[in-house]
Amino acid sequence: MQLGMIGLGRMGANLVRRLTNNGHSCVVYDVNAAAVNALTGQDIQHADSLDDFIAKLSRPRVVWVMVPAGVTGKTVSDLAALLSVDDTIIDGGNSYYRDDQVRAKTLKPHGIHYVDCGTSGGVFGLERGYCLMIGGEDGVIDRLDPIFRSIAPGVASAPRTAGREGEPAAEEHGYLHCGPAGAGHFVKMIHNGIEYGLMAAYAEGLNILKHADVGLRSRTQDAETTPLREPEAYQYHIDIAKVTEVWRRGSVISSWLLDLTAAALAGDSELEQFSGHVSDSGEGRWTTLAAVDEGVPAPVISAALFGRFESQGEADYADRILSAMRKQFGGHDEKQKSDS
Amino acid sequence: MQLGMIGLGRMGANLVRRLTNNGHSCVVYDVNAAAVNALTGQDIQHADSLDDFIAKLSRPRVVWVMVPAGVTGKTVSDLAALLSVDDTIIDGGNSYYRDDQVRAKTLKPHGIHYVDCGTSGGVFGLERGYCLMIGGEDGVIDRLDPIFRSIAPGVASAPRTAGREGEPAAEEHGYLHCGPAGAGHFVKMIHNGIEYGLMAAYAEGLNILKHADVGLRSRTQDAETTPLREPEAYQYHIDIAKVTEVWRRGSVISSWLLDLTAAALAGDSELEQFSGHVSDSGEGRWTTLAAVDEGVPAPVISAALFGRFESQGEADYADRILSAMRKQFGGHDEKQKSDS
Amino acid sequence: MQLGMIGLGRMGANLVRRLTNNGHSCVVYDVNAAAVNALTGQDIQHADSLDDFIAKLSRPRVVWVMVPAGVTGKTVSDLAALLSVDDTIIDGGNSYYRDDQVRAKTLKPHGIHYVDCGTSGGVFGLERGYCLMIGGEDGVIDRLDPIFRSIAPGVASAPRTAGREGEPAAEEHGYLHCGPAGAGHFVKMIHNGIEYGLMAAYAEGLNILKHADVGLRSRTQDAETTPLREPEAYQYHIDIAKVTEVWRRGSVISSWLLDLTAAALAGDSELEQFSGHVSDSGEGRWTTLAAVDEGVPAPVISAALFGRFESQGEADYADRILSAMRKQFGGHDEKQKSDS
Amino acid sequence: MQLGMIGLGRMGANLVRRLTNNGHSCVVYDVNAAAVNALTGQDIQHADSLDDFIAKLSRPRVVWVMVPAGVTGKTVSDLAALLSVDDTIIDGGNSYYRDDQVRAKTLKPHGIHYVDCGTSGGVFGLERGYCLMIGGEDGVIDRLDPIFRSIAPGVASAPRTAGREGEPAAEEHGYLHCGPAGAGHFVKMIHNGIEYGLMAAYAEGLNILKHADVGLRSRTQDAETTPLREPEAYQYHIDIAKVTEVWRRGSVISSWLLDLTAAALAGDSELEQFSGHVSDSGEGRWTTLAAVDEGVPAPVISAALFGRFESQGEADYADRILSAMRKQFGGHDEKQKSDS
Repeated sequence: MQLGMIGLGRMGANLVRRLTNNGHSCVVYDVNAAAVNALTGQDIQHADSLDDFIAKLSRPRVVWVMVPAGVTGKTVSDLAALLSVDDTIIDGGNSYYRDDQVRAKTLKPHGIHYVDCGTSGGVFGLERGYCLMIGGEDGVIDRLDPIFRSIAPGVASAPRTAGREGEPAAEEHGYLHCGPAGAGHFVKMIHNGIEYGLMAAYAEGLNILKHADVGLRSRTQDAETTPLREPEAYQYHIDIAKVTEVWRRGSVISSWLLDLTAAALAGDSELEQFSGHVSDSGEGRWTTLAAVDEGVPAPVISAALFGRFESQGEADYADRILSAMRKQFGGHDEKQKSDS
Repeated sequence: MQLGMIGLGRMGANLVRRLTNNGHSCVVYDVNAAAVNALTGQDIQHADSLDDFIAKLSRPRVVWVMVPAGVTGKTVSDLAALLSVDDTIIDGGNSYYRDDQVRAKTLKPHGIHYVDCGTSGGVFGLERGYCLMIGGEDGVIDRLDPIFRSIAPGVASAPRTAGREGEPAAEEHGYLHCGPAGAGHFVKMIHNGIEYGLMAAYAEGLNILKHADVGLRSRTQDAETTPLREPEAYQYHIDIAKVTEVWRRGSVISSWLLDLTAAALAGDSELEQFSGHVSDSGEGRWTTLAAVDEGVPAPVISAALFGRFESQGEADYADRILSAMRKQFGGHDEKQKSDS
Repeated sequence: MQLGMIGLGRMGANLVRRLTNNGHSCVVYDVNAAAVNALTGQDIQHADSLDDFIAKLSRPRVVWVMVPAGVTGKTVSDLAALLSVDDTIIDGGNSYYRDDQVRAKTLKPHGIHYVDCGTSGGVFGLERGYCLMIGGEDGVIDRLDPIFRSIAPGVASAPRTAGREGEPAAEEHGYLHCGPAGAGHFVKMIHNGIEYGLMAAYAEGLNILKHADVGLRSRTQDAETTPLREPEAYQYHIDIAKVTEVWRRGSVISSWLLDLTAAALAGDSELEQFSGHVSDSGEGRWTTLAAVDEGVPAPVISAALFGRFESQGEADYADRILSAMRKQFGGHDEKQKSDS
Repeated sequence: MQLGMIGLGRMGANLVRRLTNNGHSCVVYDVNAAAVNALTGQDIQHADSLDDFIAKLSRPRVVWVMVPAGVTGKTVSDLAALLSVDDTIIDGGNSYYRDDQVRAKTLKPHGIHYVDCGTSGGVFGLERGYCLMIGGEDGVIDRLDPIFRSIAPGVASAPRTAGREGEPAAEEHGYLHCGPAGAGHFVKMIHNGIEYGLMAAYAEGLNILKHADVGLRSRTQDAETTPLREPEAYQYHIDIAKVTEVWRRGSVISSWLLDLTAAALAGDSELEQFSGHVSDSGEGRWTTLAAVDEGVPAPVISAALFGRFESQGEADYADRILSAMRKQFGGHDEKQKSDS
């Protein structure tokens, strides 16, 4: 099939490569002409303007939008003004699913189809394939099936699940039509929310391992420091890089995130190149908002999210209030951060 | 009654003052002779050594130990070597209740009684009275009743609870025999665990209020910062000091801790004298350990405890692992702490 | 001053009583005529329809709306259609502050003032006074000052905060103009969020106390039950009702919520009349949403909220997934709920 | 090598099979004679008593203990009485690492070596291999290397980590000498703590997905139920079984636990065979205790643990207290659990 790609950052460019490697043809466009020119190959056609882009696509057109979240809305509306009845826009970025709901509704009277596609795979997706979570109308998604199948990792990328038989279903190839507009990004949002929780679970556990030597360290002796009751129980120097490696094989907690952690630690077990300021990127927040709206508990995912806020310094005023309270009721003078 | 007090820090000295103001007599001792000399008054007798201290007490002796947690064990065993059958040691500090269990068991064969007494009241206790949570043998606690009653705040310090009638019970005076050895410090431990949760609830809420202006601030625009979807909803400059004051009257969340918070903020609403390093002091940890041993959920108290650990910088390695993972799977470069 | 009150439930009726006891006059209306007729007193004038209600108020009219959250929007718009330039609507219920922002904006072109007033005090407010958190335009709030002052508890209801001098400020009377439209309900929302955290801290702590006897109970001995390592450390029968009473005097955690807890337990320490289904009422959710939007950690308040969702059975599917996972990897057969 | 195995449950029997398949010989014993007789094969020698077991092993003997946690201590001391200088006991079960520390210290004067070996792999280990986390003395562990290497999954079971070169290290085979006595079970404990967090992250996320239809359900309309503000945003019926399947390929959250979840849901997406009572098995508790002792935050792992306690009904008294408080301050009648 022919597909137009707008946005040739790492993700967009790799999708084009994966599609053309699989026999599809692509028209590509980016506001940055250098990105367009850098992406060459058989079956890749360059466009030098949005008009040129539209002109080079055959009807019914299929346009995949892969631009930063902040400009997706504008890109979709600019595109919509140029597209025709039965054309399709696929938003493959990390949009909030509520924006998808609005966009699909806005485009519907114009006969333009809107498909939201949550895309997971990160920097390894070109080789490994991307996991796709898709929302939109049934007929439109069916028509795009060859596209999605080519992007997805394919059945062979994991052993078949016990209990599944016969012709592999789409989800076994690594793509899934999750429901109407927004459903794809809803599922992707939850995917990322889970990712926050998984990451935090590993990080916490490794931090506890790292501190298994606390009984060997001389601790400050003052009224503001709780003494360790059994120092002899905490006298281990654990090699965190080796531990993450050993867990990769045969353990219950093996995972792709663990593979990445082992890789990060292989060369740099102290991670001193990092300051520990952990950004968050929307989906963790939205997952928590959804849990609250639905009235469903999410203590782990929200704790992971709040841990990131703390790493960003956002607990500071709360912490100063706690120190102020302690001074009031107990006359405790605060240990300065540098004392610790 | 006559009581011997070992340890004349703020708490010990104030207890002596409160007792002698209420008609009791005290023999006082501290390793720091200056502390002994500073505490004068009718019915206060100085001791210049532990032997002198013991000699000045009439049998059966009653000794209240009010020394730093780290030296309580040694003080109790030194005392025990000098005391006689039917004498009593009261540990009024913040001991771990398991130490009480051991000490009571060790002293029993010598006929020495051991009483643990959790004492709450902080720097305001001299005037306000101290809330006492007591563990030990029935007969011994009964005998000490006049001591405890004098230290406690008294019935008049709070309106009577609906449903309580007749002669006020001990707990309505502000002291309670909670059970056998260790029970007093067990209840005090939980008291402090609750305190951690209460403090954190106020601090979190006030922090959210403080950030109600987030829609007015210009936010960094980059791929690592989640945009605020509805900035118009967060354009309030809330005066936190005034809010804590208004909640003191008539609201559901009025409390003594809120009174203290309002006092702290009255003179310094930004609290810039504090760095936000919040110490923890044993009981919050022990409460969490007890919850885990008992198999009882304590998400709020443990979250409060872990928030203090984070303020102490103890999440740093975990945060660096998260940044390392994000770089691995998404190619995200970490924002430096100084960028935020 | 004259004030019209719409909504004569417990809160509305008590506000009218408190206002007329303090020299104000009220016109009262409710869709339930019986509620109108039940509320009698000097300076209380009945209305039998909305038109009648409007007609009986002198201009510029002041109308306090105290109806269930679900009908506030309709009540405000019905009222707006009948009011005139410079009239004021006060929403004293538990509205979401974003609704206030919209309502104030909608009414502005009509010259009608909108004031949001978060009202805390519960069933005790008639006697104790209500804590008021107010949002709206400066001039309008100033004009209504006598109303707010009469409803608030008054300076005498709490000892003055150290550091405050001179003529007591409004917040020391128990009411505060927090900012423009919505600010009152924003502060009330956070107030209730804090309340969730405080309540949960007490409940958790008391639950741990309740289980201090776990070492005395015979525990199931099976592969699915973790043995208690030190049963001798958990052999206390703590009287929870007495503990909550003793903490009311002199302790750091004394509070109004603790007073209420002691009252609830005084007559019924096992609380077997309750099933443990804990409802939540909007503000706890909204506080969590605000924290997430602002990027501020709220682990304690959210844990309290999620605990309520769990009590409502909303973790059930998640728990079944956990049991299914355990069966998969470890062959663990689930203990039935009735086995525990 | 020759190895003696005591305890022929699923794990013990599978270890023997895996060892003898790899050229080792085993002497096997179990208190249950049927278990002994059921385990046949070349290189498997039966023992009918502990004495017989010891007699059939060549010196220096190597005994692997794989019995339920509750009887490990007794088994080790019974064995020790029969063993000789330079013999080795390996505890391959889920012991608490502090017990290992004590056992190693107790055996040392007798010249008996003690090795603790955390073993992960569950019911799939026979085929997949077991991940081994080992504690003990250097020379002893070195001597046992062929045993551990045969049990571990082997290098080929996962792609090599980028940055690792040359001869694969032990950890790349799937076994690791973590440190002195107890270090193996310490690392296994943290492994399981992480597992709790991972499992909870998936379960929470899937629960939020499951409730994505909340806007389609008619909700109770009463004062005790928070209305859903935007029901149109929650109208998805998500097929949870398909979602877990699609995430297995190419997504950031693919893992072995996800594979198992997909398998569990493949046949039974509602999981109605489960009641949602989730047992916990020691390591999650111990991980939390270690975090608290070390002063390291563990909000995610502890939240996962506390969620299990809640599923076991252990929040009930806390929840009844919350209902009692709400009745006190707001006059709220509790919704019965059956109403929800």
